[in-house]
Amino acid sequence: MIITLTTDFGLSDPFVGIMKGVILGIAPNVQIVDLTHEVRSYDIIEAAFLLNSSYRYFPEGTIHVVVVDPGVGSSRRALAASVHRQSFVAPDNGVLSLIFPPERTEIGPPVYDITNRSLFKEPVSHTFHGRDVFAPVAAHLARGTPIDSVGSRIIDYIKRPVPRPRVAGENRLVGTVLRIDKFGNVITNLRPDDLKQNFVIRVAGSDIHRLCGTFADAQPGELFAIEGSTGFIELALNQGSAAGRFNIELGAEIEVETGQSNN
Amino acid sequence: MIITLTTDFGLSDPFVGIMKGVILGIAPNVQIVDLTHEVRSYDIIEAAFLLNSSYRYFPEGTIHVVVVDPGVGSSRRALAASVHRQSFVAPDNGVLSLIFPPERTEIGPPVYDITNRSLFKEPVSHTFHGRDVFAPVAAHLARGTPIDSVGSRIIDYIKRPVPRPRVAGENRLVGTVLRIDKFGNVITNLRPDDLKQNFVIRVAGSDIHRLCGTFADAQPGELFAIEGSTGFIELALNQGSAAGRFNIELGAEIEVETGQSNN
Amino acid sequence: MIITLTTDFGLSDPFVGIMKGVILGIAPNVQIVDLTHEVRSYDIIEAAFLLNSSYRYFPEGTIHVVVVDPGVGSSRRALAASVHRQSFVAPDNGVLSLIFPPERTEIGPPVYDITNRSLFKEPVSHTFHGRDVFAPVAAHLARGTPIDSVGSRIIDYIKRPVPRPRVAGENRLVGTVLRIDKFGNVITNLRPDDLKQNFVIRVAGSDIHRLCGTFADAQPGELFAIEGSTGFIELALNQGSAAGRFNIELGAEIEVETGQSNN
Repeated sequence: MIITLTTDFGLSDPFVGIMKGVILGIAPNVQIVDLTHEVRSYDIIEAAFLLNSSYRYFPEGTIHVVVVDPGVGSSRRALAASVHRQSFVAPDNGVLSLIFPPERTEIGPPVYDITNRSLFKEPVSHTFHGRDVFAPVAAHLARGTPIDSVGSRIIDYIKRPVPRPRVAGENRLVGTVLRIDKFGNVITNLRPDDLKQNFVIRVAGSDIHRLCGTFADAQPGELFAIEGSTGFIELALNQGSAAGRFNIELGAEIEVETGQSNN
Repeated sequence: MIITLTTDFGLSDPFVGIMKGVILGIAPNVQIVDLTHEVRSYDIIEAAFLLNSSYRYFPEGTIHVVVVDPGVGSSRRALAASVHRQSFVAPDNGVLSLIFPPERTEIGPPVYDITNRSLFKEPVSHTFHGRDVFAPVAAHLARGTPIDSVGSRIIDYIKRPVPRPRVAGENRLVGTVLRIDKFGNVITNLRPDDLKQNFVIRVAGSDIHRLCGTFADAQPGELFAIEGSTGFIELALNQGSAAGRFNIELGAEIEVETGQSNN
Repeated sequence: MIITLTTDFGLSDPFVGIMKGVILGIAPNVQIVDLTHEVRSYDIIEAAFLLNSSYRYFPEGTIHVVVVDPGVGSSRRALAASVHRQSFVAPDNGVLSLIFPPERTEIGPPVYDITNRSLFKEPVSHTFHGRDVFAPVAAHLARGTPIDSVGSRIIDYIKRPVPRPRVAGENRLVGTVLRIDKFGNVITNLRPDDLKQNFVIRVAGSDIHRLCGTFADAQPGELFAIEGSTGFIELALNQGSAAGRFNIELGAEIEVETGQSNN
């Protein structure tokens, strides 16, 4: 059984190690995998995006714990959900938005409000539910506790809109920078289908005309678009940092014009 | 069986991975958990504080290895200790100060001077005892080697004083910044009991009057005090970095006045 | 069974976690160890050096995966090699240069061109072979797939020259900085034998005359040479950063004069 951890805790503090101690005290045989602990502090949308990029590469039955939790200690609920044949344990703040189906229906996925304190590590602090709530609940699930024993099923869990490209004219689309990876590749919310024939991407004073199949197709120093490993369009610079070249940041706008004939 | 690792090695070099290779070569079935490898280089007090914040969340029998070791290669001793139903393996330089009982007694905890070279990885280098001494000794303990076979029991292990708040007048106390976490929360050496009625904390030109139960109790942008997850008072800024706001560093002094009546 | 991972992916993105998900989906019982994910982006020589410093500390049968892969998606081959009673899975770009024997012979080590797509995670992307090729192939090897079933044996794998000290006169040798570790120790490509009697190392305007056995032998603030844990000469500053003191970078030259009589 695998438990993954995604947090904004960083690795300098012992928060992540402590969560692992709690998990292994309850479920000694789980394999714990770090997705990342470098989510920007309190950035719920980034965590939602990272989780959505990753969960599908884990086997059935994996339990994903996400702790990006600006509301810790308040009355925000804690959720356990069973979706895509995997389980998800997280605060009810939108961090699972991309895991839930797009439409909210009466039937919906099985999502539970975690209230069964017998699964918690007592006393529960007001500041570290990763340790006191999310880690122990995930460990109990890994040991076989049925998910519906964590609390009542609910349908009004929080879903946040994730920025989608906006149509800004007949041949114009405005996308957004979702993320910049370690190599400086600029991950956008555009999909390959958004780049029709003769597109031009305008970003920070530069124009990009080319969609490459691989990084190696581009010339050294060439800016180009590529379908990244998560299915989104990325703006890249062969063996260099596109983000550094554009001086671009998260949330920046990217303009796409398509169907250009000659220039 | 769990072995935890706490070092100042960082994660850019392969030092930590190498220690894990040595451990798994001896004890293939242990679970290895990283507490943190971002202790400030050579900072024995920080390591002592982090270990003390963390060990209690691990199950009985866990073996904690701490390698913050400015004296590596010198005649400083290596220790194995059995305290709190867990084991600790570390250089004898004070890094276990907070693990040992406050008073040094004749009976004391079982602490051993590691000298049994049959447990080492030979040849022992002069520069990397994490690999050649601490990792293999911990792995042998995990496999069942009795702790008293590592060497002679000793009582003169090194304990370093950890800074405690100092009384500076009838209603004045001077505390210290122990640590700043990833979120910019300023962890002090004050305890909730030190903040009596009508306290004011003066720090870097700001006054803090309020002790909140949770982060979410505070107004956005408000500076406040809170009992952190390790039981110390932390100075925090709701969804912001208190350390950034104060421009404060490790070791800085924090003044507390209590029993203030009106202003 | 152990699989180690060495990449230039960093830990902010979920790339490493995703590789682990793929591995554990195929081989649920392996132990995965991170060597480092902080190789400088695209730096094949650094990865070769780090791997060579580390693999020997792992038990027989360990599988080492290295993904520093500027040519991902191009026609560069993928390799699986059986050397030193361990296995190595990596792109064919020189990253295994230091693992292969120095002389290329007809017999050579068993090195295979990975082409058996039944071992891949389909569909194979053009941008993330760590996930789609290297992780699943390593996992299949861990489960017992014979290494010669990955593809044809080859002998024309890529080997890159690693910089060796250059003789620059009867008593002069010019070495290079291979790496700077977290403590600021400057790891050179010099060996202890290169420092004969009465040597002087000239680097960035400073002279070093002393080879210490341990860090603790040096005076506080003294610059000295020491045989590091990987067998190379390192330039160090007792409890300080030699790299910071010299303001030196990777690839910088270091001059050694030996057999100096009096000054």
